[in-house]
Amino acid sequence: MILEIINKKRLGEELSYEELDTIFNGYLNGDVPDYQMSSLLMAICINGMTDKEIFDLTKIFIDSGDVLDFSDVPGVKVDKHSTGGIGDKTTLVIAPIVASLGIPVIKMSGRGLGYTGGTIDKLESIPGYRVDLTDEEISKQVKDINLVITGQTSSLVPMDKVIYALRDVTATVSSIPLIASSIMSKKIASGADKILIDIKVGNGALLQTREDAEKLSELMIKIGKEYQREIRTIISDMDTPLGKCVGNSLEVLEAIDVLKGVEKNNNFVKLCYELATEMVSMGLSISHEEAYQKVVESVDSGLAYQKFLELVKRQNGDVNGIKVSDKTYNLCAQSSGTIKKINALEVGKLSLLLGAGKENIDDIIDYTVGVKLNKLVGEFVEKGEVLATLYVNKDILNVSVDRIFTID
Amino acid sequence: MILEIINKKRLGEELSYEELDTIFNGYLNGDVPDYQMSSLLMAICINGMTDKEIFDLTKIFIDSGDVLDFSDVPGVKVDKHSTGGIGDKTTLVIAPIVASLGIPVIKMSGRGLGYTGGTIDKLESIPGYRVDLTDEEISKQVKDINLVITGQTSSLVPMDKVIYALRDVTATVSSIPLIASSIMSKKIASGADKILIDIKVGNGALLQTREDAEKLSELMIKIGKEYQREIRTIISDMDTPLGKCVGNSLEVLEAIDVLKGVEKNNNFVKLCYELATEMVSMGLSISHEEAYQKVVESVDSGLAYQKFLELVKRQNGDVNGIKVSDKTYNLCAQSSGTIKKINALEVGKLSLLLGAGKENIDDIIDYTVGVKLNKLVGEFVEKGEVLATLYVNKDILNVSVDRIFTID
Repeated sequence: MILEIINKKRLGEELSYEELDTIFNGYLNGDVPDYQMSSLLMAICINGMTDKEIFDLTKIFIDSGDVLDFSDVPGVKVDKHSTGGIGDKTTLVIAPIVASLGIPVIKMSGRGLGYTGGTIDKLESIPGYRVDLTDEEISKQVKDINLVITGQTSSLVPMDKVIYALRDVTATVSSIPLIASSIMSKKIASGADKILIDIKVGNGALLQTREDAEKLSELMIKIGKEYQREIRTIISDMDTPLGKCVGNSLEVLEAIDVLKGVEKNNNFVKLCYELATEMVSMGLSISHEEAYQKVVESVDSGLAYQKFLELVKRQNGDVNGIKVSDKTYNLCAQSSGTIKKINALEVGKLSLLLGAGKENIDDIIDYTVGVKLNKLVGEFVEKGEVLATLYVNKDILNVSVDRIFTID
Repeated sequence: MILEIINKKRLGEELSYEELDTIFNGYLNGDVPDYQMSSLLMAICINGMTDKEIFDLTKIFIDSGDVLDFSDVPGVKVDKHSTGGIGDKTTLVIAPIVASLGIPVIKMSGRGLGYTGGTIDKLESIPGYRVDLTDEEISKQVKDINLVITGQTSSLVPMDKVIYALRDVTATVSSIPLIASSIMSKKIASGADKILIDIKVGNGALLQTREDAEKLSELMIKIGKEYQREIRTIISDMDTPLGKCVGNSLEVLEAIDVLKGVEKNNNFVKLCYELATEMVSMGLSISHEEAYQKVVESVDSGLAYQKFLELVKRQNGDVNGIKVSDKTYNLCAQSSGTIKKINALEVGKLSLLLGAGKENIDDIIDYTVGVKLNKLVGEFVEKGEVLATLYVNKDILNVSVDRIFTID
C-alpha cells in the first residue's frame, strides 16, 4: 500500500486525500519509516503536486494538531511570516508597530536551523524572555497589551515538525508545494484572520528565482481562499543581507535602533516599513497611504518602541541584559572602490561559523556572536577601511573578505 | 556534502565519479543513513542518469567486493541473466544443455524477493543441494563437470545487496540505470567472458513496456563494451507465466521434464531453446542454426539431462527427494470457451499467497506449494474443466479464477 502510494507519485500521478493521509499520518505515528517518507518527499520535490493535493496535504497538516481559536480577542488578528533570510529580524520591529496601532498581533515564531537563528532564538538572547507561553497566557496577554511573540506550542501542527526535520536532511526542502503546505498549515492553525507572507528570493534564501517566488505566492493565496483567510504576499530581495547585523543579540539591538528611529535608512528599515504598512492596511482595512502614515507616526512618537519594551517586560525579558561578545575582529577593504555587492549567503555562512546559527539540531547557539556590517552596498570605501566587525567567541581562521564584499 | 550531492541529482544534474563514490560507499559503510540514500535513489529514478554516471556507478558497485577470476578455466565462459518473471526456471534447463556441449557455465544465482523464489530457492527444493560453494569449489567443479549453479558469495558486489534491499522498500526498483548497474556489476564481477541477458516485459515483470526493455538492453550492451564483455540480449514476454508450473519444487520437476524431452511444446520450452541456442552460439562462436542443432541434439540424446543429474549429485542434492504438497485444490472453468489470456501477475500473486515466494525478507519459502496450469493459452475448455491445480499447505480463501484466466 505504502509502496503503491510512493510509486504513484514517482510516476507523477495525483494522490488522493486517503493516500496522502495514510502515508503522512503513518509517518507521524511511526508506522512508515524515514526512508519511505524521504523517497516520497523527493518524488514530490521533482514531480510536484496538484492544487488538490496541496489543499489536502495542508488539511492533513492542520488536523495533525490543535487549531487555536482567538475569536474572543476583539479585532482583526493579522499574522506575518517570512520564508527566512540573512539578518531578517523584521518581526521584532513590525509586530510592536502594528500592535501599537491597535491591531492584535499573536506571533508564534520558530527557531532557526540554518545560517542564523530564528525569531525565537533572537528573542532568547534577551535574558529572561519567555518563549513558552501557554494558550491561556497568550490569550490574556494579547487582550492586555495587543501583542505576543512566543514559540510554537508542540501541539501546533506536529506533522510539520517531523516532516520539516526529515526534509532538512534529505535535500527536499526546496519544494514549493511542501513549503506552501508547511507555512500555511501553521499560520491557519495559529488562528490568524489575515496573513502577510514575505517571500524572500536570492542566494541567501530558500528560493533562488522570482519565478519560484511567484509560484509560491500564488499557491499560498489559493490555500488561503480554501480556508477563508485573506493572504497578501510581498516578494523581497535576499541577495544582500537585511540591514547591518547578523547574529542574535546584534539583531535585537539593531531592531531596537529601528524602533527608536535611530536607524532610518537601509534595506532593512525600508522592508520593515513596507511590511508594517501592509499589515496595518489589512488589520484596519485602510489604504496603503493611510497605513504608511500611521506606521511612521508610531515610530516617530515612540509608541512602537514603548510597545516593544512592554512586550519584553510582560514576557519577563530584560532589555538591558542583552550582551554581545567583547572580542571583535575587523574585516578590512583590500582595495578602494564602491561596494557593489554584499553576498548574503556568504555572510550567513560566516555567521554560522561564528556560532550564531545551528548546523545540526543539537548545536547550541551563541547569542553574543555575529557580523556587523559597517559599510553597505553603494558606499565608497578606502583600502584598509573596516568593512565589517565580527563579534567572536572562538578563534577565527581565515575569512575571505572577497567572498563577502564585491568592491569595484 | 551529501545534501549537495542529493540536491544536484534532484535538479537533474550529472554527478561526478567522486560524488557517486562518496554517497554510495558512505551508505555501504553506514555513514550515510537510509533516508538520504532513498531520497537520492528516488531522484535517480525520476531524473535518470547519464551514460557516464551509469558506467561510474557500475564500477563503484564492482569495486565494492571481490572480482572473481576464472581465467584458469579453459573455454569461453558464458553467463546468462534474466530480469525475472513468473515461472522462470530457464536456468535449470539451459545451463545443463550448454554445459553438455563443452561450454563451461558458472552460474551464480540469487534468491527471490517477490512473487516466486529465485533460482537458488528453486534449487534448494532439491533436498541436500548445496548453494554455498566456495570460490575454490566452484573452480574445481567447473573444471571437472563444466557446470556450477550456486548462490552469490557475500563478497560479490556487497553494494548491490544493500542498495537492492533499500530500493525494494522505497518504490525505487523500476529505474533502468539502477537495474543496469545492479545486473551488470554482478555479471562482470562473476568473471564471465560473455553474457546473455533475458529482459522480460509484461505485467509479471519489472519492466512494463517494450520501450523500457530496449533502453535497458542498449544500456547493458554499452556497459559491456566498457568492460570488454560481449553482451547479447533477448526481450521476452512476461504477460503470460512461463510454462505450466509456478512454485519451487513444481518448477524443478517441470525443468526435468523439459530436459528429458517429455515436455516439448509451450512458451517455456521455446524460450529455453532460444536462450540455449544464443549461449551456445556465443560460447562456440558458431551460427544460430548450428547452435540450435546442437541444443536439440543435447536434449534428444539425453546428455543435457545427464548433465543436470551430474550437477545435482556433485552439489549433494537428491533429485528423488523433491516433494510437492499432496494437498491440492482445483480451479475450474466457469464457462466454456478458448483461453485467451493467463495473467502472469495474478498467478504470481496467487503463488505468493500460497507461500512459494517471500513478501518480506524474513518470510520462509514453502518449496512444496505452487500453481500448475493444466490448460494453456489457446486451448479450448469446457465449463467445469480443471484449469489449474493449486498445491497448498494452508487454507485457501476464495481464489478468483476470472482474474487469472480470460476465457472467451
